[in-house]
Amino acid sequence: MTHYQNQTRMLTAVDCIIFGFDGESLKILLVHRGIEPEKGKWSLMGGFIQPDESADHAATRILKTLTGLEGVYLEQLYTFGEPGRDPIERTISITYFALVDIDEYSPEWFLLNKIPKLIFDHNEMVKMAKEKLQYKAALHPLLFELLPKKFTLPQLQSLYESVYGTSFDKRNFSRKVLSTNLLVKQEDKYKGGSKKGAYYYKLNTKKYKANFQAFLNIIPNAHLL
Amino acid sequence: MTHYQNQTRMLTAVDCIIFGFDGESLKILLVHRGIEPEKGKWSLMGGFIQPDESADHAATRILKTLTGLEGVYLEQLYTFGEPGRDPIERTISITYFALVDIDEYSPEWFLLNKIPKLIFDHNEMVKMAKEKLQYKAALHPLLFELLPKKFTLPQLQSLYESVYGTSFDKRNFSRKVLSTNLLVKQEDKYKGGSKKGAYYYKLNTKKYKANFQAFLNIIPNAHLL
Repeated sequence: MTHYQNQTRMLTAVDCIIFGFDGESLKILLVHRGIEPEKGKWSLMGGFIQPDESADHAATRILKTLTGLEGVYLEQLYTFGEPGRDPIERTISITYFALVDIDEYSPEWFLLNKIPKLIFDHNEMVKMAKEKLQYKAALHPLLFELLPKKFTLPQLQSLYESVYGTSFDKRNFSRKVLSTNLLVKQEDKYKGGSKKGAYYYKLNTKKYKANFQAFLNIIPNAHLL
Repeated sequence: MTHYQNQTRMLTAVDCIIFGFDGESLKILLVHRGIEPEKGKWSLMGGFIQPDESADHAATRILKTLTGLEGVYLEQLYTFGEPGRDPIERTISITYFALVDIDEYSPEWFLLNKIPKLIFDHNEMVKMAKEKLQYKAALHPLLFELLPKKFTLPQLQSLYESVYGTSFDKRNFSRKVLSTNLLVKQEDKYKGGSKKGAYYYKLNTKKYKANFQAFLNIIPNAHLL
């Protein structure tokens, strides 16, 4: 017990890196910080962990309070614990990354490759989340979390291309994606793009949940990431 | 500032899941806990984060203090933050997993599939570290950290087999491992095993470091993990 008594207690916070996709580009959600220090500056969404809640609970609560969103894909990323990262008082930050259908929440989205200078070590948090997204999406079908319920193959390809900053061969991409058997073809088409239009697809949610841990093989040269 | 003042400070600790390989089986390093509560019970190696050090630094320091080991492969795993996980006082634990050459440190190693009941949520931490090890070793050549400087292909295969709890075809395994070009064949043989003996290999450390982020393809059916 003596050993406990001599130790330092620290503030602990949660910060969320929230990704969205507008049909062309990856985006990230930022807020104006509401408290000192750095009040008014761009920041990730975050808050302190309360005495009676887990870190997971804090992340869910903060997301709900600030955006109204519930049932969002949320995963613990990394814990930032440098002593000087918050200039006022040492704060341990447990980061989470979230994937959100952008249509369900609109304000304050930033293009991922054009985000401003953020407070503290938040730019570093974003960088790590982006790497994790690339890494994880090469193995698991989690990018569907970023799409609306109905989407087209060109839309899906454009999402993968903006995550990896590259372009894929259209025929190969369609073949690989369809071979996962995760997609259900719909009867109606999106007519906005080409003359022929593009069929809508929906995710087979049951299969998606059952196979989430299965490796995907959509990304060629994933070893170059 | 008011916002900071109203918040709760918490104890923050680091716990290390340390893996070793004895030539046949995966092992894990445990210690008798030195303080109350649960004094004397089996525990992962851990300690509180000090006011002036980062979490990484705390993990390195604790490993060095308790084992004398330096320059060990150490990676942040996950942060455990359930309010009741330590019955005395709320403690946030940032876990690290470490890979150690077992010959460099001997006492208190336990067979990974025969570890005792540990304090708090430490069994859960071990489970997560084991999954991470399987996941990561399917993609990156990190298991070499567990071997002595000179090793044979049967030894390497036995390591992979004990990590994945399965057996691999000998010829396929050798072919895949050698195709990574990470191994340098030595002139001398280990004579203990079969009549013919088995050549020793060393890791090409320069290539290993340069290619660490490259995906490996040693594990067949990695998607079944």
